[in-house]
Amino acid sequence: MRDNLQFIPLGGMGEIGKNMYAYQYGDEILVVDAGLKFPEEEMFGIDYVIPNISYLLENQKKVQAIFLTHGHEDHVGALPFVLKQLPVPVYGTKLTLGLLKVKLDEHNVSANLKEVRAGDVVPIGRFKVQCIHVNHSIPDSLGLAIKTPVGTIFHSGDFKLDQTPVDGKVTDYFALTTLGQEGVLALMADSTNAQRPGYTKSERDVGKVLDDIFAKIKGRAIVATFASNIHRIQQVFDTADRFGRKVAVVGRSMVNNVTTAVDLGYLVFPKGILVEIEDLSKLPADKVVIISTGSQGEPLSGLTRMASGSHPRINILPGDTVILASTPVPGNEKLVSRVIDGLAKAGAQVIYQGILDVHVSGHASREELKLMINMLRPKFMVPIHGEYRHQAAFSNLAQLMGYESSVVLAVENGDIVEFTRDSARPAGKVPAGSVLVDGIGVGDVGNVVLRDRQQLAADGVLVASVTIDRQQRKILAGPTIISRGFVYVKESEGLLSEAEARIAASLLKALQSSTEWSTLRNSVREPLIELMYEKTRRRPVILPMLMELNRD
Amino acid sequence: MRDNLQFIPLGGMGEIGKNMYAYQYGDEILVVDAGLKFPEEEMFGIDYVIPNISYLLENQKKVQAIFLTHGHEDHVGALPFVLKQLPVPVYGTKLTLGLLKVKLDEHNVSANLKEVRAGDVVPIGRFKVQCIHVNHSIPDSLGLAIKTPVGTIFHSGDFKLDQTPVDGKVTDYFALTTLGQEGVLALMADSTNAQRPGYTKSERDVGKVLDDIFAKIKGRAIVATFASNIHRIQQVFDTADRFGRKVAVVGRSMVNNVTTAVDLGYLVFPKGILVEIEDLSKLPADKVVIISTGSQGEPLSGLTRMASGSHPRINILPGDTVILASTPVPGNEKLVSRVIDGLAKAGAQVIYQGILDVHVSGHASREELKLMINMLRPKFMVPIHGEYRHQAAFSNLAQLMGYESSVVLAVENGDIVEFTRDSARPAGKVPAGSVLVDGIGVGDVGNVVLRDRQQLAADGVLVASVTIDRQQRKILAGPTIISRGFVYVKESEGLLSEAEARIAASLLKALQSSTEWSTLRNSVREPLIELMYEKTRRRPVILPMLMELNRD
Repeated sequence: MRDNLQFIPLGGMGEIGKNMYAYQYGDEILVVDAGLKFPEEEMFGIDYVIPNISYLLENQKKVQAIFLTHGHEDHVGALPFVLKQLPVPVYGTKLTLGLLKVKLDEHNVSANLKEVRAGDVVPIGRFKVQCIHVNHSIPDSLGLAIKTPVGTIFHSGDFKLDQTPVDGKVTDYFALTTLGQEGVLALMADSTNAQRPGYTKSERDVGKVLDDIFAKIKGRAIVATFASNIHRIQQVFDTADRFGRKVAVVGRSMVNNVTTAVDLGYLVFPKGILVEIEDLSKLPADKVVIISTGSQGEPLSGLTRMASGSHPRINILPGDTVILASTPVPGNEKLVSRVIDGLAKAGAQVIYQGILDVHVSGHASREELKLMINMLRPKFMVPIHGEYRHQAAFSNLAQLMGYESSVVLAVENGDIVEFTRDSARPAGKVPAGSVLVDGIGVGDVGNVVLRDRQQLAADGVLVASVTIDRQQRKILAGPTIISRGFVYVKESEGLLSEAEARIAASLLKALQSSTEWSTLRNSVREPLIELMYEKTRRRPVILPMLMELNRD
Repeated sequence: MRDNLQFIPLGGMGEIGKNMYAYQYGDEILVVDAGLKFPEEEMFGIDYVIPNISYLLENQKKVQAIFLTHGHEDHVGALPFVLKQLPVPVYGTKLTLGLLKVKLDEHNVSANLKEVRAGDVVPIGRFKVQCIHVNHSIPDSLGLAIKTPVGTIFHSGDFKLDQTPVDGKVTDYFALTTLGQEGVLALMADSTNAQRPGYTKSERDVGKVLDDIFAKIKGRAIVATFASNIHRIQQVFDTADRFGRKVAVVGRSMVNNVTTAVDLGYLVFPKGILVEIEDLSKLPADKVVIISTGSQGEPLSGLTRMASGSHPRINILPGDTVILASTPVPGNEKLVSRVIDGLAKAGAQVIYQGILDVHVSGHASREELKLMINMLRPKFMVPIHGEYRHQAAFSNLAQLMGYESSVVLAVENGDIVEFTRDSARPAGKVPAGSVLVDGIGVGDVGNVVLRDRQQLAADGVLVASVTIDRQQRKILAGPTIISRGFVYVKESEGLLSEAEARIAASLLKALQSSTEWSTLRNSVREPLIELMYEKTRRRPVILPMLMELNRD
């Protein structure tokens, strides 16, 4: 009997982020990417969200390797957590592994990292993975042609088709069309921009806009962008060089990434351009460029602190020009607009997407997706890397090209799709979903804790502590009430002492007829809920703490 | 000695929302608008933010009236709270007062409402207020020409210059140019769109797009928009009528506003078009239009509940077309995109701004602002209704028109600007800022409570209760620990009992050398902070509750 190929997405379907995809053939599993995503607004206190990998842990012996497409957080960020439980070899290009290494070191995680290059064909069990160079907003990105006994899968990774990439390395069209010629079973395609008509602009266009801006300004230039967008950072250095300016780098992740990219040869500039922040004061304003983190308005980032006047080493001065070479990730719009306002107020001219084209996307728009499909001519397609509407737009696009709707599969995280040489069908489900990371806790915060945090956030907490003697039906100590986040205590003493009196009465009454803990606790809880709602229309978390004397 | 005119903004400067502006001449104060704004993301549990009116309360006898420009929440929403403390007459147009009345009734607030019409000149003390019709995204909007002994102020209100308004009532250009001819001391100008080049599109353009959409679809049409945008609602009725469809209205605020607008004659449609939701099931899908709230993704709104499948009466069906005739207010982008995804997943075609032009702004773009300035030719200008960058863009625009930069005043909430016939200068400050409304509490939640809520939200709370005998240096009951929002208790029993043991040891040690409450409390708090951070890297709110036996 022949085995079939199973495709099992563990993250990245119906969402932007935490990309992780498993390919299983027989008793071998190849994993592509292991990303994180940032928490939703209502996930209070959560640092990251990572994929549920319980299926992989149950089949630990089958997992051969994790293969990375590129070095972005949403494709590699879960590895420090995943590798602790699943110590398998990790394949990636030089820059991808270089950036990953810094993060693994921060988490004290060691790993078996295996460097690959575009063009390599890497045998992993019965899979052969051909590494194909694609363009994206980080250098050294790969699409993976995964050759399996039932046919070839092209897993696109994040990609765009940039005809004038900053590093001159265009997407490998020959490799793609050759795959198409030989036959592609399925295309797993980046659907992030499947709603955008036309072609995504070239990264190089941002460089031209930077040149235009630098030609006009006389003061300092401060450029904020994603720390991983090495091409854009390269262009800032290039423009600075053309205008005889020096460059200083601000923000931990920016410094880390620039250091790694320089060390590995992905960022190249004439000696002497890069200076320390301390040296800026010796330079005239029109000789200064600062590259900073904070293009998303992140509260602790370099630019945000400059905007609020709390950066230890850089003050915004009238005459400064700040360029936000980025676009807000959905959910960050308000943070970003606060930063813009703070910078403007401090006297800077602020240039951002909408004012000038200082950002281009890293993902393929509709015409590029069509071109990719036409080069590969796959039998089946699965839109990945997208929320539902992006996936639906991809499906619609394929149908406009003449493909049957049944050829584009609607797949959610955890869905198993089983491929033969000429068929694809749903084949059950594995556990999938979100694991929340809070501090060093991975998965210990779930819905119960989150719901409590939401109620605590909305109306605070009220604790009523009483020590009782159930046999004597007496209150020995308390009731004492403490609250936090509910009302301003200094102005609510009357309310709190009224509450203590009510609880005492209610509890004494309850003690006459019952010694059940749950009855007694309710006799404390209920008058509190009632009184507080009546007086404030709020519903704080109410914690009755009933204690008895310790037995010696 | 002659009095001067003082302009004192109490809200609306450096922010979008909570508009409130005071004009003081001698011992008379005229207030324009009294709006609210919605809380920032980190203002946990807060319902609304309203202006600080302590200056008006201190000068209560001087306040003559509150004059309203239009009926939007950010211009009238604080009145239920303000009128309780400051029961002065309120002037506004019929629709403005009609919408306000519903809100005042909900809050059980009575008010002396005085109806005015465009063209009226209303004497209020030594002020004369000329009501001038302007266009905006709600009908019956006014700009106010406030005639004072030192000159005329034109307070624009929210406005655009729509050449084809839905109700046919264009902005009163003759009144504006006449003011210009007679001389305008200062223009207080809506700066919301001062960054947008060109002219804002006409509301009527949305009607054309609705027609195009209705011409193509065969299933139900569900249109979500702002409940106050009566013109857009009118256009939905008009389009429905042209295509022989019936209309049902969903969502409390939509039902309220449609009822008020119909009663007052601002919404006009043939009898029989409006049907109850219950009657929809009797109609074929291509005869149905539903107008709903929820265009901002508000969690409890009609559309959001339809998107999540939890609406009690309306299920989204394949074949439905949902039109979000709106644009997300900054901060709501993610909520809106979740709603879009939910609707798409349920099988609806979803049309929103970006896919088609189903929304136009209600605010004047740069060319309209220039036209307004050219009609009025004011001596001085103050950009209002805007964050700092909008105000700065307005100033830049005036300078491009040849005005001196000194003529455009940079003013923040609480700044007093003193006008004579030919001068304007800063003249001190009054208290201004945000008052937070939470439930029925107005102003009782401040920074302390908010900071507690933020910490509670991030890491939860841990309460340690102990009853002690300080004389005997003994623990009588406890320590007992309860937590909420910190860790999942069922899986953390070990951690919590370890904590109880540590506290007991630390407290007993402290009791040997001290009976000070603060020392004893710290002996409980500190080992808890330390242990929890070590084991979880979290910093929950720690509440030590030390009690002694009650004296009988």
